[in-house]
Formats: sequence, C-alpha cells, structure tokens
Amino acid sequence: MSQTGGSPRAGTVKQITSHANPVVKEIKGLVAQRKHRTQSGLFVAEGLKLATDALDAGWTVRYLALGPDARDNPKAQQAAAVAKARGAVVLEVSTAILSAMTRKDNPQTVVGVYAQKTLALSDIGTADATVWVALDRVRDPGNLGTIIRTVDAAGAGGVILVGDCTDPFAVETVRATMGSLFHVPIAKANPEAFLDFARNWPGMVVGTHLEGAVDYRTPDYREPVLLVMGNEQQGLGAETAAACEPLIRIPQAGQADSLNLAVATGVALYEIRRPHLTL
Amino acid sequence: MSQTGGSPRAGTVKQITSHANPVVKEIKGLVAQRKHRTQSGLFVAEGLKLATDALDAGWTVRYLALGPDARDNPKAQQAAAVAKARGAVVLEVSTAILSAMTRKDNPQTVVGVYAQKTLALSDIGTADATVWVALDRVRDPGNLGTIIRTVDAAGAGGVILVGDCTDPFAVETVRATMGSLFHVPIAKANPEAFLDFARNWPGMVVGTHLEGAVDYRTPDYREPVLLVMGNEQQGLGAETAAACEPLIRIPQAGQADSLNLAVATGVALYEIRRPHLTL
Repeated sequence: MSQTGGSPRAGTVKQITSHANPVVKEIKGLVAQRKHRTQSGLFVAEGLKLATDALDAGWTVRYLALGPDARDNPKAQQAAAVAKARGAVVLEVSTAILSAMTRKDNPQTVVGVYAQKTLALSDIGTADATVWVALDRVRDPGNLGTIIRTVDAAGAGGVILVGDCTDPFAVETVRATMGSLFHVPIAKANPEAFLDFARNWPGMVVGTHLEGAVDYRTPDYREPVLLVMGNEQQGLGAETAAACEPLIRIPQAGQADSLNLAVATGVALYEIRRPHLTL
Repeated sequence: MSQTGGSPRAGTVKQITSHANPVVKEIKGLVAQRKHRTQSGLFVAEGLKLATDALDAGWTVRYLALGPDARDNPKAQQAAAVAKARGAVVLEVSTAILSAMTRKDNPQTVVGVYAQKTLALSDIGTADATVWVALDRVRDPGNLGTIIRTVDAAGAGGVILVGDCTDPFAVETVRATMGSLFHVPIAKANPEAFLDFARNWPGMVVGTHLEGAVDYRTPDYREPVLLVMGNEQQGLGAETAAACEPLIRIPQAGQADSLNLAVATGVALYEIRRPHLTL
C-alpha cells in the first residue's frame, strides 16, 4: 500500500503514518479553508458521536480517520465497518496526525469527512413543518451551529441561509451543532430569491427587529411560520424587514443593547413552537 | 518619559512604541493567563463601547490604551479624559502593539484594563431581584459571556459562579458579554457554601435538568427565584440537583440531546421573567 500515491481505493482500510500523505493534506485543507470545502463539496466533523449521527442519518462518508483509542472501541469499530461497507476509506492514524488534521491539541479519536448536503428553496416542503428559520447574513460560526442545534431541539423544519453567511460546514459550526447538522435541513438562497420565496410563503413571515412594534408573545402565529433573524451587527436588512409582517421584538429590561443571536432565536422559536412542545 | 522604567504614574498620558515595554507585557499577560488576572485582580476589555460602559458604571480603570484611530475620535478622547481624571494611565500605542496586546489581527482601537469586581454570597440582596442565575461549573467562556448578556437583557439580578468555573474576566468572556459584564453583579461560591446559600434562599430554587419532571412553563415561580443551570457536559451535580425544587425541563422535539447552555438559560429566564417583561 503506497503512502504517497494517488487516492486510496474506496471501501478500504489504510494505515497512514506520514504527515505528508495527500489524504492528510486534503483533510487539513478542508478544516482550514472554506475554498477547499466548496470546491470538493466535502467537510469535516469531529468525534464518534457525530460519525454515528451522520451514518445513522444516511450521509455520505468519504473518509473515517480512527486514532489509536478508537481501535479498541466497539462503537468506533462498528462505525468504521458501516463506513467501509458504504465505500468510505477508513484511515488508521496516530494522535499526532489527528491533531494536525483538526488543529487541536486534544483531538477527538474519530474524524470523519462527509459530503455536503444543502437544499434549494424549491426543495422546502411546508406541508409538515410548523416553522422554518431564515438567517440573514449570519456571520459567527458558533452562533450558526448553536442555532442549528436549537432548531433541531425545538422541532423546527430547517434553516435557510440568506445572502453572505458563514459556512455551515466549517469545523467550528459543525462542532457547535453537536450533531444536529445531520438532522436539520439547510437551504441557501441569495437575497432576491429569498424575498420572492418569502412573498409566496403560505403562512406568517415573522421578522425579529430591535424596533419591532409587536411583543414576540402576542401574535397568533399562523403556521407555517417563517422566522427571519438578522445579522449579528446590523439586524435585518431593510428590504428583508419590509417583507416581514409582523416585526416582533423580545422585551429587554437591563442595559444590554440586544440578545445574542442564538439566544434570541431560541427564545423566539420556543415561543412560536409553544403549542407543540410537551415533555 | 522613560520607555522601560518602572510603572508609569497614575493620571498621566504615555506614548509607548516598544513591544518590550513592561506595561505592554503586563497587558499581554492579563489577556493570556488567568493566573496573571487572579494575581493582579485586573482584566482586559476591548473596545470603546466597553470602555464607555465601564466608566459610566463606575468601574476602576487602570490603563486605557488608544490606537491611532482613537486619537481623532471625540468619544475615545472623552473616555481617555475621564479615565485620566480618575487616575488611570492613558497609553498611546500603535495598531501593532494593540494587536500584540490582544492577540488579534484586527484589534479594537481602544483597550482598557480594569479592576475585577465580584460579590460574596453574603452581599447578594434579594429584596429587589426577581431572579438570580447560578451556574454550576460553567466551562465555556462564550457561554458564560452570553449568559451574562442574557441576564442583563432579561433584567435578572446577577450571576453566581459555583465551583470550578471558567473565568468571567477572560477576554473571550468579556467580549461575549458585549458590555453587560459592567452591569451584572457576579458572585463566586464554592459548592458547599452555595448549597448552604440555596437552602436559605427565601423563594424558589429551580434547577434545569434533562430528567426534570416539570415542564419549565408550568411552575408558579415564587420570587425571588434562584435558577440553577448545570455544566455543559454533565448538567447539575447530584447534590446541587437535590437542593432544587422543582427540577424543570425544556421540552425537545427533535434529535438533539440538549440545548446549548446559554440558549437554555435564555429560554428559562425569559419564561421566569415573563410577567415582568414588556416592550
């Protein structure tokens, strides 16, 4: 088995010991740069929990890298067997190589590379969803990941990324989703297409706005609800805000200017989903 | 004016051009290491907005470092004048030095060094607060900062850090508070002292727990409420959970295991504060 030759064959197990191995370099590129993720359509998710989530949810896995600790772990071995049967290359690597791949001092013992999956607006079915969340130019990877996790927990339909957003497949974002990335549909849209989509939305299009005139607890939310959240610094763009009715606001009592975007999304989403959520 | 001599005199303005200047080193140490913050009782907050918040709220400022852009900015000049009048040393520095101090490529143009301020449990007055938030071993600086911001926005009384928590004065935490650090009282307690405090709390002691039997929307919250949130990985410790009545849970519909700690705190806090919050 060559260490530096062409791509390893699908459905094989390969020991990698060299940091110069092209697969190691490929994975490092996917972690480091959005450009590499976009060009290849791949992304990296760390950890056995996320690998299991991805495989259970039927995502396509390209590589599954196992560190030394994973080799005695029955769950990791099972994930590796499933990945291999589905055509992935299973890599056996050192902790040092895992660390280099993910740029972390204490890397997770399993690192997976998966094929990205996003929807077009036309793929969004509103028949069974009570609420979708649209994010207007969300910039912070941690916020986006946390919102995806919250959308999952609240049982919303999915997330629409409008305009120039942070990459949902960045390693920090994926980490913050805690696996919900593999359960929450994500669509991307440019602002014009989204405005058109919002105009044709069958239910209520609700924007949150620091100058919103309506308390977020008062609307009789007509489903399906499209909840539109603005950029961390600037809030909703003017055109986007104009497409929303009502513009809601979460009351504030102290001296903070605003809530963190993920917290605001959580508070609004739990209010909109209130009738549907029970223990 | 010496560049490398002893500490600059209080209430003065000092140009610093050398990275080797002891004040530059001192500020770098405060950014980099909790040990330095604890030993000196000082911390760093970036940005003019936070400097203004700190000065308005009467916090003690030790240094205020101004980059080139701040020297033409009337608000920055005003902050510098106030800081100097209160005995701070105002530093005029290059962007490169600001960048080195805060380990950021694009530093804010104002960086302040302030004296830490925390309460003891015995300082907590419950007379006018409707709710306080206790965090059991919170570990993530972003979560803690976001929670402090949320406590401010929701008009809660303050935050109690129980046991081994992340440093509220770490630069990432301060950044995530968006200035609310200067408005929200923070107390620290060891677990035993906190349990004793909780037993003597005059109102309801509410814990959030993944196995809590009570929907977070059902209790008739008897004020003052002490809302106790657990560690990101492990939730509430057993002894702490036993001190709470009721243990509430936020319902979840999807496949996420849990909500992010800051989001969960926001959702619970907005529910507890529901009767008090209006636009």
